[in-house]
Amino acid sequence: MKKLSIPQGTRDFGPDVVRKRNYIFATIRKTFELYGFQPLETPAMENTSTLLGKYGDEGDRLIFKILNNGESIYGQAQMAKDAHELGLLLCEKALKYDLTIPFARYVVMNQGKLVLPFKRYQIQPVWRGDRPQRGRYREFYQCDADVIGSNSLLNEIELLKIYDTVLTELGLKGYQLKINNRKILTGLAELVGRPELMTEITVAIDKLDKIGDSGVRQELAERGLLPAEIDTVMNFIAVDGTNDEKLAQLTQLLAASETGLKGVEELRFIAGSQLIPFNEAPVIDLTLARGLNYYTGMIVEVKAPATVNMGSIGGGGRYDDLTGLFGLPGISGVGISFGVDRIYDVLEELQLFPAEAQQGTQVLFFYPGENRLAEAFGYVSQIRAKGVITELYAENIKQDKQYKYAEKRGIPFIAYVEDNEPGTIFIKNIPNKQRFAIKPEELAAFDFS
Amino acid sequence: MKKLSIPQGTRDFGPDVVRKRNYIFATIRKTFELYGFQPLETPAMENTSTLLGKYGDEGDRLIFKILNNGESIYGQAQMAKDAHELGLLLCEKALKYDLTIPFARYVVMNQGKLVLPFKRYQIQPVWRGDRPQRGRYREFYQCDADVIGSNSLLNEIELLKIYDTVLTELGLKGYQLKINNRKILTGLAELVGRPELMTEITVAIDKLDKIGDSGVRQELAERGLLPAEIDTVMNFIAVDGTNDEKLAQLTQLLAASETGLKGVEELRFIAGSQLIPFNEAPVIDLTLARGLNYYTGMIVEVKAPATVNMGSIGGGGRYDDLTGLFGLPGISGVGISFGVDRIYDVLEELQLFPAEAQQGTQVLFFYPGENRLAEAFGYVSQIRAKGVITELYAENIKQDKQYKYAEKRGIPFIAYVEDNEPGTIFIKNIPNKQRFAIKPEELAAFDFS
Repeated sequence: MKKLSIPQGTRDFGPDVVRKRNYIFATIRKTFELYGFQPLETPAMENTSTLLGKYGDEGDRLIFKILNNGESIYGQAQMAKDAHELGLLLCEKALKYDLTIPFARYVVMNQGKLVLPFKRYQIQPVWRGDRPQRGRYREFYQCDADVIGSNSLLNEIELLKIYDTVLTELGLKGYQLKINNRKILTGLAELVGRPELMTEITVAIDKLDKIGDSGVRQELAERGLLPAEIDTVMNFIAVDGTNDEKLAQLTQLLAASETGLKGVEELRFIAGSQLIPFNEAPVIDLTLARGLNYYTGMIVEVKAPATVNMGSIGGGGRYDDLTGLFGLPGISGVGISFGVDRIYDVLEELQLFPAEAQQGTQVLFFYPGENRLAEAFGYVSQIRAKGVITELYAENIKQDKQYKYAEKRGIPFIAYVEDNEPGTIFIKNIPNKQRFAIKPEELAAFDFS
Repeated sequence: MKKLSIPQGTRDFGPDVVRKRNYIFATIRKTFELYGFQPLETPAMENTSTLLGKYGDEGDRLIFKILNNGESIYGQAQMAKDAHELGLLLCEKALKYDLTIPFARYVVMNQGKLVLPFKRYQIQPVWRGDRPQRGRYREFYQCDADVIGSNSLLNEIELLKIYDTVLTELGLKGYQLKINNRKILTGLAELVGRPELMTEITVAIDKLDKIGDSGVRQELAERGLLPAEIDTVMNFIAVDGTNDEKLAQLTQLLAASETGLKGVEELRFIAGSQLIPFNEAPVIDLTLARGLNYYTGMIVEVKAPATVNMGSIGGGGRYDDLTGLFGLPGISGVGISFGVDRIYDVLEELQLFPAEAQQGTQVLFFYPGENRLAEAFGYVSQIRAKGVITELYAENIKQDKQYKYAEKRGIPFIAYVEDNEPGTIFIKNIPNKQRFAIKPEELAAFDFS
């Protein structure tokens, strides 16, 4: 028999991992809900035509396509001229690649019914045929919240506050909410005198963290900037100080760029007005660019605390046109996303998962002997009624084997009755070796924690 | 532009539906957990070789296969002799068809680490290329709990009690937990004198509900039973009375069948011993057969209350060999499954979803004017701190438009401040038209329910 395996880049999540993941999801979900975001779920499968052409050529290649059922595929396969055409002919459906395009598709299909502004969140898996590597999977959850149909910057502020709230609730400190504004980057390209190279400039400075000053200079040169222009870029991203100091310098530097000044004004409202108290206040970072070209206003990226080597654990921004590709122009919005796999690794490394997130069975009730089964079931259901996870051992085997089962499973309490001691329940707390002998009427008040 | 759509048999779940579905999932999950079942999640994609050959020819045809990425598919497509081979050559991966085979695969892959008995639950979507029709989807959730590595009938009793607990918590009454035992059906085939026709007999009597007495007779005849044999079957399934009365008659009828008597004994322990009090006690139904051949002991099917026309909302049973197909024999178990889509329809029809399951935003705080934004954010976060879902309207538009937004969204409370009334928060309960004017220090105690 061939050795069993699961597809490359996918994962089984055993009980301990599911519990910890659910703790993260629940914390995020609770905050999304509290802020009035509404849950949406879309199918794993979308029509191939809905997905293709939305993520660039590279993205298209990474979309998992689903073979049509039925016999007709054989004839169709003969008609294809290459692998690309084969995929299109044989696969009407594909697995979703992100949550944004399905959301856009949903908005267009439900445009008559939706009340705008529409605040939705969505926590679902997506699939990408990327080459698997550490921290990159072919099936992973995305966790998005977006507001569409509102241009107000209050949305940006609330979304930043959601990051701050969730990360604080997860026990994190020292994370960084880095923000910038695509309009400021446009302003920079104008300042350099090369507005047509805005994308090239942003791609280069986005790498500052990884390749350093000289690397960025080299990359800018390769992308066609002259030495003087490169100096302008490097001086610009070297702007330093508090948020207010940066904003003051930016106002001067971008004095000639209407768009740039608009970006500065937006950032000032978001980061300068302090309408909401933050645990970790957003910090303006002029090197933050975010690759995706559809952002048009504020952009944000969340960095894990410096004590862990992780990088970004979330990001988002404002976009002008969510649904234009589907024929419904003018829907703008702003959204954020949590990187749950990375947050999981951070909490694990910093040992921040609380005991509740790791709590399985709390009490093992031993098999009680045939004639006291009903009595034991009664005790077990009394303990469960307190919300305490309880198992009744179902097999009639020696008590020391049942005890071993509790130990292996990490169940902290065992409880049992003895044939020669009616009216007594024996309880032992395994980790701290405490023993108790209680009467049945004391069970309801017994503290199994 | 082509009209947008989603693949046949798939569904978008908007906010109201997600909330109600999550209420059902949470109720089931809570009970599974309380009984010591541990969560497992497996990937959407499995290796095609893991799935094929496990569900019969018909099942194999309904499995959604995923096209391999890369260019090599073009050459491979040329080598296929028919549609079936094409699928095998081009698709290493497929979407999971149920939760049982992936569970079996997980058990085999983790056999060294698992502590037996292993109680796991799994709530995840599965995919089947069935022809979509009312109540049948191509993507739907399964919701399973299984105990493996224990032959004790206490597991059967606890699983039946889980049905009873969950359905009661969902507000249902009058559901039926129908139980039977495959060993009794084996005994019946022996009693008829046609042990080799056991499957044919069970398939026929399983349809009694739908085709009635004469239909079953005809079907049995078509499947090769002689008139006297058919009489024996019909007399057998006509056995009536309380559980105890049925058991007494079965003991007599099956006196010559060792296997049959074993089945009677098991049912007597499960249904007769009354070890646990039930809200709706399990009822022995000799016509219950359940199509799947891997069941070997108790089988169960849950019928919706007779007041709704729905049929089965759950089912399960005991099996002897979960993992033999993957080379690990001797793993027996017993499991149950909830049909969440149908339970949803039943709760909807009986209007049993509680208000909490339908509760979205509770308070809309109007846009307060530029100079009082920080103050309003403060009020909003005070209300949220009480766990009350609250939105701050982000756009500076006329109050009557904001009011309309609250009405359209079904938000019961609006709150606002007025420029000429500092130190007062105005609140209106839209459904009952009550108005309040409170001081900021009264906000924390205000009842938004």
